Amino acid sequence: TVGQFELVYNAFSFAIAVMGAATIFFFLGRSQVAAPYKTAITVTGLVTLIAAYHYVRIFSSWEASYTVLAGQVTATGVKFNDAYRYVDWLLTVPLLLIELILVMRLPQAETVAKGTKLGLLAVLMVVLGYPGEISGLSGTRWLWWSLAMIPFLLIVFDLFVGLKKSIASQPQSVRGLVSAARWLTVVSWCFYPVVFVFPMIGFTGSAATTAVQIGYTVADIVAKAVFGVLVYMIAVRKSGADVDTAV
Amino acid sequence: TVGQFELVYNAFSFAIAVMGAATIFFFLGRSQVAAPYKTAITVTGLVTLIAAYHYVRIFSSWEASYTVLAGQVTATGVKFNDAYRYVDWLLTVPLLLIELILVMRLPQAETVAKGTKLGLLAVLMVVLGYPGEISGLSGTRWLWWSLAMIPFLLIVFDLFVGLKKSIASQPQSVRGLVSAARWLTVVSWCFYPVVFVFPMIGFTGSAATTAVQIGYTVADIVAKAVFGVLVYMIAVRKSGADVDTAV
Amino acid sequence: TVGQFELVYNAFSFAIAVMGAATIFFFLGRSQVAAPYKTAITVTGLVTLIAAYHYVRIFSSWEASYTVLAGQVTATGVKFNDAYRYVDWLLTVPLLLIELILVMRLPQAETVAKGTKLGLLAVLMVVLGYPGEISGLSGTRWLWWSLAMIPFLLIVFDLFVGLKKSIASQPQSVRGLVSAARWLTVVSWCFYPVVFVFPMIGFTGSAATTAVQIGYTVADIVAKAVFGVLVYMIAVRKSGADVDTAV
Amino acid sequence: TVGQFELVYNAFSFAIAVMGAATIFFFLGRSQVAAPYKTAITVTGLVTLIAAYHYVRIFSSWEASYTVLAGQVTATGVKFNDAYRYVDWLLTVPLLLIELILVMRLPQAETVAKGTKLGLLAVLMVVLGYPGEISGLSGTRWLWWSLAMIPFLLIVFDLFVGLKKSIASQPQSVRGLVSAARWLTVVSWCFYPVVFVFPMIGFTGSAATTAVQIGYTVADIVAKAVFGVLVYMIAVRKSGADVDTAV
Amino acid sequence: TVGQFELVYNAFSFAIAVMGAATIFFFLGRSQVAAPYKTAITVTGLVTLIAAYHYVRIFSSWEASYTVLAGQVTATGVKFNDAYRYVDWLLTVPLLLIELILVMRLPQAETVAKGTKLGLLAVLMVVLGYPGEISGLSGTRWLWWSLAMIPFLLIVFDLFVGLKKSIASQPQSVRGLVSAARWLTVVSWCFYPVVFVFPMIGFTGSAATTAVQIGYTVADIVAKAVFGVLVYMIAVRKSGADVDTAV
Amino acid sequence: TVGQFELVYNAFSFAIAVMGAATIFFFLGRSQVAAPYKTAITVTGLVTLIAAYHYVRIFSSWEASYTVLAGQVTATGVKFNDAYRYVDWLLTVPLLLIELILVMRLPQAETVAKGTKLGLLAVLMVVLGYPGEISGLSGTRWLWWSLAMIPFLLIVFDLFVGLKKSIASQPQSVRGLVSAARWLTVVSWCFYPVVFVFPMIGFTGSAATTAVQIGYTVADIVAKAVFGVLVYMIAVRKSGADVDTAV
Ligand SMILES: CC1=C(/C=C/C(C)=C/C=C/C(C)=C/C=O)C(C)(C)CCC1
Ligand SMILES: CC1=C(/C=C/C(C)=C/C=C/C(C)=C/C=O)C(C)(C)CCC1
Ligand SMILES: CC1=C(/C=C/C(C)=C/C=C/C(C)=C/C=O)C(C)(C)CCC1
Ligand SMILES: CC1=C(/C=C/C(C)=C/C=C/C(C)=C/C=O)C(C)(C)CCC1
Ligand SMILES: CC1=C(/C=C/C(C)=C/C=C/C(C)=C/C=O)C(C)(C)CCC1
Ligand SMILES: CC1=C(/C=C/C(C)=C/C=C/C(C)=C/C=O)C(C)(C)CCC1
Repeated sequence: TVGQFELVYNAFSFAIAVMGAATIFFFLGRSQVAAPYKTAITVTGLVTLIAAYHYVRIFSSWEASYTVLAGQVTATGVKFNDAYRYVDWLLTVPLLLIELILVMRLPQAETVAKGTKLGLLAVLMVVLGYPGEISGLSGTRWLWWSLAMIPFLLIVFDLFVGLKKSIASQPQSVRGLVSAARWLTVVSWCFYPVVFVFPMIGFTGSAATTAVQIGYTVADIVAKAVFGVLVYMIAVRKSGADVDTAV
Repeated sequence: TVGQFELVYNAFSFAIAVMGAATIFFFLGRSQVAAPYKTAITVTGLVTLIAAYHYVRIFSSWEASYTVLAGQVTATGVKFNDAYRYVDWLLTVPLLLIELILVMRLPQAETVAKGTKLGLLAVLMVVLGYPGEISGLSGTRWLWWSLAMIPFLLIVFDLFVGLKKSIASQPQSVRGLVSAARWLTVVSWCFYPVVFVFPMIGFTGSAATTAVQIGYTVADIVAKAVFGVLVYMIAVRKSGADVDTAV
Repeated sequence: TVGQFELVYNAFSFAIAVMGAATIFFFLGRSQVAAPYKTAITVTGLVTLIAAYHYVRIFSSWEASYTVLAGQVTATGVKFNDAYRYVDWLLTVPLLLIELILVMRLPQAETVAKGTKLGLLAVLMVVLGYPGEISGLSGTRWLWWSLAMIPFLLIVFDLFVGLKKSIASQPQSVRGLVSAARWLTVVSWCFYPVVFVFPMIGFTGSAATTAVQIGYTVADIVAKAVFGVLVYMIAVRKSGADVDTAV
Repeated sequence: TVGQFELVYNAFSFAIAVMGAATIFFFLGRSQVAAPYKTAITVTGLVTLIAAYHYVRIFSSWEASYTVLAGQVTATGVKFNDAYRYVDWLLTVPLLLIELILVMRLPQAETVAKGTKLGLLAVLMVVLGYPGEISGLSGTRWLWWSLAMIPFLLIVFDLFVGLKKSIASQPQSVRGLVSAARWLTVVSWCFYPVVFVFPMIGFTGSAATTAVQIGYTVADIVAKAVFGVLVYMIAVRKSGADVDTAV
Repeated sequence: TVGQFELVYNAFSFAIAVMGAATIFFFLGRSQVAAPYKTAITVTGLVTLIAAYHYVRIFSSWEASYTVLAGQVTATGVKFNDAYRYVDWLLTVPLLLIELILVMRLPQAETVAKGTKLGLLAVLMVVLGYPGEISGLSGTRWLWWSLAMIPFLLIVFDLFVGLKKSIASQPQSVRGLVSAARWLTVVSWCFYPVVFVFPMIGFTGSAATTAVQIGYTVADIVAKAVFGVLVYMIAVRKSGADVDTAV
Repeated sequence: TVGQFELVYNAFSFAIAVMGAATIFFFLGRSQVAAPYKTAITVTGLVTLIAAYHYVRIFSSWEASYTVLAGQVTATGVKFNDAYRYVDWLLTVPLLLIELILVMRLPQAETVAKGTKLGLLAVLMVVLGYPGEISGLSGTRWLWWSLAMIPFLLIVFDLFVGLKKSIASQPQSVRGLVSAARWLTVVSWCFYPVVFVFPMIGFTGSAATTAVQIGYTVADIVAKAVFGVLVYMIAVRKSGADVDTAV
């Protein structure tokens, strides 16, 4: 219905505003962290910039797929590029993991090893989800969902357990924030496979489309922008109060 | 009528100019405050930037919804996206609260706790107002208005009482300004639920539309740009006279 | 006639160039004044930037309202947005007053008080002029002109008398410039209510339109760009010769 | 003919490139002169920026006025905005004089007095030339030409005699350059009234148009960009070899 | 099919995002390496910027060549500019080699000699591949493939053997990274001649087009962006921990 | 043919990428040379920027002049602006000579004298070549070619002999580079008069057009971007290893 079309339309526009503002916030905030954390904040800003670019494209695809005329929504025949999010995740999901690892400031070898492992698992997860996303058949979707869940669970396990050990080595002032970031990642990431199954557990037609788009959009905002603010706060606190910043 | 159409048209354009100029003012002014206040001014500039972006979209929607031909205003059939402001408020209203808390420079734990609480209440308030905004039925609008008033009153109460305590801990030079900011927030925010009820208390047709749009626009300018100037002045005074600034 | 159309067309384009160049000049010049005057120059640059934006819109409206074909000017039926200047003045006129007050560097309390008083009077003046501007009736125009003259005269009086006292407390090197700025403000501002009455004292048709547009444009250039250069020169001289500037 | 159309087309495009490149050169070079000369280089860059903007508009007007089809040039009926240069000169000619005075670094009072006098004469000269430019009648053109020659000769005289005195007070290292700038101004400026009379001394039709446009374009490039490079060289030499520059 | 069209469409868009984000990352990261490595990072950023520009063009060509209508892909008759990648490689492949040589910081004479030799071989390789790329005949494609393989093998040999010697002279901390970069170059570059032969070893029609475009895109991302990150990490480590960075 | 059209199309696009990337490289590299060489690098960047602007225009003209439809190239009737390169050379050729002279850092009087002489000869050379370029008649082309060869030979002679003397006064570390730049200039510049005669020594129709456009494009890239890199390397080496650079 028109209400659903407008809700998704406004949600996408909201996501553009959030990701755009977050990008500016992180790029301006980069100068207020110490040198070891600048790369982490650069990556944080790139995640939201890439997301803003992709939401502009998703928004345009949405506008092109439907026409609203005198209170009636009709499909134009142009297919909504539903898989476009995977293009976004393929780049941003590995970067999100790298962002978290960088701000933890683990030993160099561990940073490289963990970053490589989690990054490759993330790419695998997104690639394994793509064939299911573009399919309409329930069986196909369940198959690829199951396969993508494997790297997904490996990542979540590593985040949950592996990072818990690392928290102990963090300064007292950021342990709460790192713990919050860890929880936020786990919880927000669990949204995605849940949203993916909406069309297979009873949601149909425009209700399914609306629920999927709103669900993914909310999850993206939390997993990227809100998570980024936590990473930024961690970096600022670890930089200490005597960073001499120039603008 | 044409006069009403042009009044709203000019009001939206005025809002774009105000928000755009305010954004530049705050981003340039950021270098003239001390390090602890830079984040507050960054958020202040982002609020007006997001608002400028949203007013450009609101302005375009207004242009697309009506045609003025030889002194006659006619609707084009394209619906004016009246709910677009909620997309704006969903992001800017929490940021406004964070902006005020940051410039107060409360203890770190209190900053995080109060920011989280007020931010979530603000999101709840806007989300609870949205279904009423897109409804034409008086009963539905009153229902959601009442529900949104709950978090609204909680926020206002906290601002009015909670911040009054904090004022005592502020430097003498800014107490007047913080008090003014507190009052300005309370008064300007009360505009919004009042404007919301205009169509339910006798305003009809184009008069209602005009009153609502002008009312919200004036309130936005006061609550964002004027409030931002107060926050900036607080930050400058708290930074002291010996900030060594570079451009 | 075509000559009149082109004269106004060229005048608007000239105003865009002047305001655009002035904006760049002030933003570049900001780094060559001492810290206490940076905000004044920021405001000066914003005034001309806002004016450039508004002249671009006025220029577009003028192009849309008339067609020139083989030496003949015909109206298109699209109304020239004559009231657009009020949108500009509503923001720039208060800023101009703030600009002058800031560069005087009065005591802090006096700066805030005078800025608030004059700013509100300026808003009132422009708002009271708007209903007359959009009216074609002589009586209506005279009525609102008279009402707007009240805050106008209060502002001019305060500028003329109030600022004369302040000049004595300025350094010797800038007294001439401040006096010139004071005179320039008074004289250039008097243009506006005079131009406003052109259609009520004998100017008719295209001659009235041409005279009004050229008159307001010349006044805007003097009151904004020329006045801004005076403010900038005051700021540079008050900054002294040993400002260490970085680019 | 097509050859003439293309010659003017290419000349305008060349002017855009020259003025654009000169603008970048002067804005980048601004950081390599001492503080007292920065304003002079800012004005130099603004002159060429304003000229680039105006040449873009002149170029567009030229494209809109003629169509080239299969080796044949035909007028479209849209009038070439021949008077557009006056809009440019009204701003750039006073700025050029100010540019030369600033880089001479005369005593402050003399700078202001000479700048005001020459600036006003320049505005008068351009304004007095405008009615003749938009006229097709030889008599009218001669009349306004004669009137404009009066301020023109006063300016040239002052440049030639007044500045000759000032050269003696300049450092030895720049006397040659200042003399060259003085000569270049006088010679290049004399082009303008000569080009103005082309249609009154035998040039007709497209030959007159071509000669006028090429003539004014060459003169603009010499009087703005080449002159600006001389002013820049004067500023660099007067800044001395130990300017500590930052990029 | 539509699936294949969308896969390539999304792959190109992904490449734009990767190259764009990488460019920003490298230009921001340039300030965090020591002076001797800044040029290497500048070149790294230029490689991904040039690639982003070229992917925008490739993406547009792809959109112009096919129409998707109601689940059916049809060619528009506009030829997909398949050779456009060669324009990209002609510039980026030599730059990639220079990038690696610069970050190794070899003796100056060796840097110039090796850079010139490998750069010219790279240009030769791409030029020799171009006639085959634009040909549809298998024999022609094999001929030029064979010719291009000659400079290709010379480059790979030099990278593999020549750089192995240089690794020993690198600091301990980067030997692993330099080795990884060497391997990544060799492996990723081998993709290209393999992808080139896809249409000659059994891939046909849209399957061939899809495989070629996805293959080249993945190889470009690895050879440019991933390789660039390795070069950046080498530069950061060789810069040491006490680089005093300014933003 | 289509192949020829696409070859030229891709060559122009390649030139845009090269000139654009070179511009960024030089503007970023400007901060890594000592103060006396900054102007030389500024000019180097302006040369490639002007060239990029002109190649965008040449590229557009090429697209407008031909249509490719189902493997067939047809002229649209819009004339390819073949003389557009002269507009480019008129500005960039003098700047290239100034660039070389500046980086040599000759005595001030010699810099000005040689720069003026060679610059004027360059302008004369390009102006004398223009009438031949726009002519289709062999005799006319030979005439102007011969006339343009006179300043051409004077420039080449001065570069070859005059600069050889200057090389002896350069630091040992750059003698090889300055010699290479001298040779590269002479060799690359000789391309131009050779390419000019292609249509008069047997090349006809589309083969002539293709050869001329590819020839001029390759020569421009070598004479501007490759030459610029040599100038940059000379400036870096002459700046020495202890330039304290800020980004
Ligand atoms: C497990 C699983 C999935 C997981 C997706 C995830 C976890 C996405 C995370 C995205 C983020 C964090 C984006 C931006 O920040 C898919 C692909 C939906 C497919 C079905 C199974
Ligand atoms: C209580 C209430 C509302 C309150 C809205 C408010 C308080 C909005 C504030 C917006 C600001 C401050 C924007 C920009 O600065 C709604 C949503 C109208 C719905 C009806 C009830
Ligand atoms: C008294 C009066 C007026 C005064 C306008 C003024 C004084 C405008 C000043 C504008 C400036 C200074 C703009 C830009 O700098 C109106 C509104 C025409 C209405 C009629 C009466
Ligand atoms: C005397 C005279 C004229 C003089 C014009 C001049 C002197 C223009 C200078 C322009 C410059 C210097 C532009 C940019 O740098 C006119 C107006 C043609 C009208 C006829 C008489
Ligand atoms: C040997 C060979 C080729 C090699 C291409 C290569 C090695 C390309 C590398 C491109 C890179 C590295 C791009 C961006 O980073 C061609 C031309 C396909 C033609 C067939 C034979
Ligand atoms: C002698 C000669 C010519 C020389 C042209 C040259 C030498 C051009 C150089 C251009 C450069 C260096 C461009 C950009 O860097 C022309 C005009 C073709 C005309 C025929 C005779």
